[in-house]
Amino acid sequence: MMPRVTEQHRATRRAEIINAAARLFATNGFHATAMADIISDAGLSAGAVYRYFRSKEELIAAVAEEALTAADETFRDLLADGAAPAPEHALAIIITTIDTRIGRHPGTGLDLTRIGVQVWAEALRSPDVALRVNQVYRRLRGNFAEIARRRPGLAGADPEQVGAAMLALVQGYVLQRLLMTGTDTTGYLAGVTALLATEDGRRE
Amino acid sequence: MMPRVTEQHRATRRAEIINAAARLFATNGFHATAMADIISDAGLSAGAVYRYFRSKEELIAAVAEEALTAADETFRDLLADGAAPAPEHALAIIITTIDTRIGRHPGTGLDLTRIGVQVWAEALRSPDVALRVNQVYRRLRGNFAEIARRRPGLAGADPEQVGAAMLALVQGYVLQRLLMTGTDTTGYLAGVTALLATEDGRRE
Repeated sequence: MMPRVTEQHRATRRAEIINAAARLFATNGFHATAMADIISDAGLSAGAVYRYFRSKEELIAAVAEEALTAADETFRDLLADGAAPAPEHALAIIITTIDTRIGRHPGTGLDLTRIGVQVWAEALRSPDVALRVNQVYRRLRGNFAEIARRRPGLAGADPEQVGAAMLALVQGYVLQRLLMTGTDTTGYLAGVTALLATEDGRRE
Repeated sequence: MMPRVTEQHRATRRAEIINAAARLFATNGFHATAMADIISDAGLSAGAVYRYFRSKEELIAAVAEEALTAADETFRDLLADGAAPAPEHALAIIITTIDTRIGRHPGTGLDLTRIGVQVWAEALRSPDVALRVNQVYRRLRGNFAEIARRRPGLAGADPEQVGAAMLALVQGYVLQRLLMTGTDTTGYLAGVTALLATEDGRRE
């Protein structure tokens, strides 16, 4: 029994530290947040925190992973059993996940998309963060590419290229949701569906 | 003659200050850049700089405007004489403008899209910046909406909603271009065209 309890204890402790970091990043931003603030907010010793995360960059990555786990789970469900969802359906499901599980993180109530935008800016200055962001977006694009690959209507297209366009529609939504007043999910998805439905761009 | 010379002098001086600010923002980020750094980089007196810009926030807005002037001019050309460009054509033209005039600013050689991403992060902390970003994106969305409005194939759709989806494809491109290795304009536009051409989302 001991090892399982220890592992659970470690997971809980790790989540506490991540939640403290997410709170401070979302409120004050990365630059105004020091490891000392996170240690203090988590109510742990410095040694305890550093045992899990050696740097603020590692914590940024962990918070981002937290948000992306929700996206990964959504893709797993979407692609289960050889399903071939329509692009606009897949986008609706992913964007709903952003609203319900990332825009309001169940553990903390925080809007983790705000941290996402900070991660983008941070990636322009930190090669470590840039490397992780590149990996994460490639994974997400790969999931969208798999959707493109399964659609007969997209048989002639490069799936990764179509995946990039689908990913952009999600990235743009995240940005508009935070920075443009009046953005709402239903309206945004209606616009995406209409744009994908236009005959203007049809091949043949 | 005097007033015209004075106005030209003012415009030149203003551009010098904006270029100095853009250089420092792009290299060191907003937070590591103080008005004193900009004043020193521009080689002017504090009084001279403050006559044009009262705060760092005003300079951020001015640098952003510089980038957006190129986008505005591109839309003006696209929409001239009652033209009704296809969405994927309009996106190709705007994205090419980003590559050639914003991603490599003719005045300074700087990649102003890097500053764009910083502006997004800054907007989450500064209500002043948020207000301006909201205005700018509404203007851009309005231009895309006008394209949607002129397309017979989009007659049943809400133009502002379609405009939001087109804007997202541009915002996502800016992000992927900076943060995902291997992103190239031609491949990205091929993905957009294929996605818009799919029959998956066709109404009827």
